[in-house]
Amino acid sequence: MKKTVITYGTFDMFHIGHLNLLKKMNDYGDELIVAVSTDEFNLLKGKKTLIPWAQRVEIVSAIKGVDKVIPEYSWEQKIEDIKKYNADVFVIGDDWRGKFDFLKEHCDVCYLERTDGVSTTMLKKSLSAIKDISKKDLINALDILEQLRSDLE
Amino acid sequence: MKKTVITYGTFDMFHIGHLNLLKKMNDYGDELIVAVSTDEFNLLKGKKTLIPWAQRVEIVSAIKGVDKVIPEYSWEQKIEDIKKYNADVFVIGDDWRGKFDFLKEHCDVCYLERTDGVSTTMLKKSLSAIKDISKKDLINALDILEQLRSDLE
Repeated sequence: MKKTVITYGTFDMFHIGHLNLLKKMNDYGDELIVAVSTDEFNLLKGKKTLIPWAQRVEIVSAIKGVDKVIPEYSWEQKIEDIKKYNADVFVIGDDWRGKFDFLKEHCDVCYLERTDGVSTTMLKKSLSAIKDISKKDLINALDILEQLRSDLE
Repeated sequence: MKKTVITYGTFDMFHIGHLNLLKKMNDYGDELIVAVSTDEFNLLKGKKTLIPWAQRVEIVSAIKGVDKVIPEYSWEQKIEDIKKYNADVFVIGDDWRGKFDFLKEHCDVCYLERTDGVSTTMLKKSLSAIKDISKKDLINALDILEQLRSDLE
């Protein structure tokens, strides 16, 4: 019987950590549905994305093994999505471990080890530091960028 | 008869411009081979990539419609590659218009319009400005980052 996997994420500045997660998720079933957080939902969570939602959707949709992309617009939509798409497994990075155990009455819940969570977070930190341009802020922002570059090497 | 398309590029910080180009290239044949520039070849060209070669290869390989990824390690390999892989069409972004007309005796040569060439270049400029940290450099780097962010919105 066909097994459907569902996951949720922002996928800003698509990088190897995102790809590795999606590849692992593919092993959990035959069909992979990815809910990509809208810009509005990210703002609600206090997150400012660098890449707009439509572009993030296009890139995630273009990844081999991704069968369907839907919008993530609220915290509350998961149970509804699981029912609507007959999802058998909910998977997400293990930085969320324990947080979605309440979905276990609707489907399997798996937390996957992240191999790389650095680049998006680092880049966003450096960008948010731009707001108030003082010399201290400038140095902070560039330290973070320098660290980002060396982390990725 | 199967038609093979070949292209060359760096694909640093994979973004919507890269994806749009790859999608268009797909329309030119049945099989798409992408040569991804090695870090060494980029250094030779005076380009420092943010994302290491192996990761750039993994991401390009994961894009739907990309059938094979090979390393680009020199300017001179193209004719050899075209023969080796029986490529029918060489395609590349139109920022290279005219530069590869010498390949026309081996296969068709197409230059495709770029929809977005901004993000990688902008990001790299901001990173290269980090080297010598003076206040002027800091402000330049952050101006570029700010511009990058607004260009992407």
